[in-house]
Amino acid sequence: MMMLIDANDMDAIATGSAVYGTGGGGDPYIGKLLAQNTMRAHGPVQLVSLDELADDDLIVPLAMAGAPTVLLEKLAQTQPLVDALRRLEQMLGRPAKALMSIEVGGLNSTIPFCAASATGLPLVDADTMGRAFPEIQMTLATLVGIHACPLAMTDEKGNVLTVQAVNNHFTERFVRSILMDMGGATCVALYAMTAAQARTATVPGSISQARRTGQALFDARARHLDPVAALLRATGGFALFAGKIVDVQRVVDAGFSRGQARLDGLGDCAGQQLELLFQNEFLLARCADAVRCATPDLIVTVDLETGEPITAEQIRYGLRVAVLGIPCVPAWRTPAALALVGPQRFGYPVAYQPVEQLAADL
Amino acid sequence: MMMLIDANDMDAIATGSAVYGTGGGGDPYIGKLLAQNTMRAHGPVQLVSLDELADDDLIVPLAMAGAPTVLLEKLAQTQPLVDALRRLEQMLGRPAKALMSIEVGGLNSTIPFCAASATGLPLVDADTMGRAFPEIQMTLATLVGIHACPLAMTDEKGNVLTVQAVNNHFTERFVRSILMDMGGATCVALYAMTAAQARTATVPGSISQARRTGQALFDARARHLDPVAALLRATGGFALFAGKIVDVQRVVDAGFSRGQARLDGLGDCAGQQLELLFQNEFLLARCADAVRCATPDLIVTVDLETGEPITAEQIRYGLRVAVLGIPCVPAWRTPAALALVGPQRFGYPVAYQPVEQLAADL
Repeated sequence: MMMLIDANDMDAIATGSAVYGTGGGGDPYIGKLLAQNTMRAHGPVQLVSLDELADDDLIVPLAMAGAPTVLLEKLAQTQPLVDALRRLEQMLGRPAKALMSIEVGGLNSTIPFCAASATGLPLVDADTMGRAFPEIQMTLATLVGIHACPLAMTDEKGNVLTVQAVNNHFTERFVRSILMDMGGATCVALYAMTAAQARTATVPGSISQARRTGQALFDARARHLDPVAALLRATGGFALFAGKIVDVQRVVDAGFSRGQARLDGLGDCAGQQLELLFQNEFLLARCADAVRCATPDLIVTVDLETGEPITAEQIRYGLRVAVLGIPCVPAWRTPAALALVGPQRFGYPVAYQPVEQLAADL
Repeated sequence: MMMLIDANDMDAIATGSAVYGTGGGGDPYIGKLLAQNTMRAHGPVQLVSLDELADDDLIVPLAMAGAPTVLLEKLAQTQPLVDALRRLEQMLGRPAKALMSIEVGGLNSTIPFCAASATGLPLVDADTMGRAFPEIQMTLATLVGIHACPLAMTDEKGNVLTVQAVNNHFTERFVRSILMDMGGATCVALYAMTAAQARTATVPGSISQARRTGQALFDARARHLDPVAALLRATGGFALFAGKIVDVQRVVDAGFSRGQARLDGLGDCAGQQLELLFQNEFLLARCADAVRCATPDLIVTVDLETGEPITAEQIRYGLRVAVLGIPCVPAWRTPAALALVGPQRFGYPVAYQPVEQLAADL
């Protein structure tokens, strides 16, 4: 099923992606504006499913990497993305047949549309996470042995670097240092794979799912229905908490935004406190010592009244938010996957339990 | 004039290079052993002058970069050097006709012999500094507008990165971060140039000059003559000081060995103190507030009895040393060159004066 995505469609895609971005992935608003601007100049983007591609077709994911704090200040541009794509094609000695998002998250699900529009290449309706994660090796592709390298990285000044690391952990280390030298952000083409590989290494349909989720939110608002309830229905998520943000601690450290937020309960949650821990993305939600939701399940904060997703960069004292927990795709729940992206990987000394079990225990 | 350099010749080349390395460039002993080992397996190396190459012949300099402190512990290997060469050739789309040393300095004047022996390529009798310097952009090539990029860097683990930076200062920044992620040292192929370009961007004959200097030292020892006097004759240098090292401060910081040493005078210098400041290389020698020698002129410490060069890594309490000052090549004395490698570039608030003038004023 082929879909043409035009500038108007980007509203729902950006908002839905901000939900699946679980607080990270960069500011969806900026990515949306850039995509809309590019699409008005270069035309709509063809969104294709993996089934429409031949097994051997080359897919190149494109992304921006860096601390969201910096991505807010250094505006995204289309040219460095295209430069990264071209450099990687040159390394591989063959042209891309389609582009892809590395993650469903604010900026990184919208900026591949910029490159797709500018180059005329189709965009695959899939991503390698089904959410956003802070580090480059944290993909389903890593789990099936697909390397992020060779990768090409660029900046707006014209610097172009390539990395062929021995494993994805080294890749993350190199990319993080280099993007800091570039000023805190980089455009990167990586995880090149064939369509046959992509069928084992991605979450299919995640971009159109993001669009449906965004659209469900818009529809609920238009019909004066509860937007948070609409989001829960669209995502299969659970309501974890409702509260007011009373404290935020945040540092930018080695290319990440790390920190935590504290919420005082409202309504049914009055008298309780929730703690949200994040590293670019929200990774752990707990009340006192009881975990409510942990990575790789998705933790999403949205405005309590409008349902608008709020990134970890945007949370601040006084915001009234609903916190949702959304089950991740099953591929993230194997022991190998949890070793890569589970709570202990981020230094949180808790065992992972599926959010639907934690919600049932309440 | 073509010369075949075999394993036996490496003794004089390594020792002479350690003189021109002005305390940096890595341990000459390790580089010599590696070169001799490679040459015994793969055969001697053809040393060619720039005049023997056609204008359009591609020359690729090879080097190791990193803090000498680390280069002492992570042993140099031939394969990563060859990997860097091959990757750069691939980027340029043409094969190298000859290799070159980036600098005359302990390790970096001997390890290109390893790659030359292993690949069968000739080595050019020249380098881009006529001495050693700590940063990648500090070459005569930079002064004539030749870029260090494209550049390929490798490590012993198999990581391969390429850098195409917008200028040589960005190159230095990227390479420094990446080599730290590689564990403090890297093999790098850079400053690819044609023979016609090299004629404007190098010190011709510097490798055979290093060999003559090393040989002059060996001959003086064999004939029981003053080895320090022999070095002064071979290099056209000046005796700056003789003394005992009484204090050394050294830190490894961002891929550099930085520090200073203090010497109490001996013999004619009794009662005086000399201070030596270094960043990988010795960069400033001063008595009280009087500068005796400053970068880009060469400051060399040698054992007072044997004349053996002593690197900044090797200096320690109790060593009795002679400190020599050797005039740099004239190309380093222009205002543009001094802005790149003069004392103020390294944070020393002194104006450059040629060492022969400073010596005449004593």
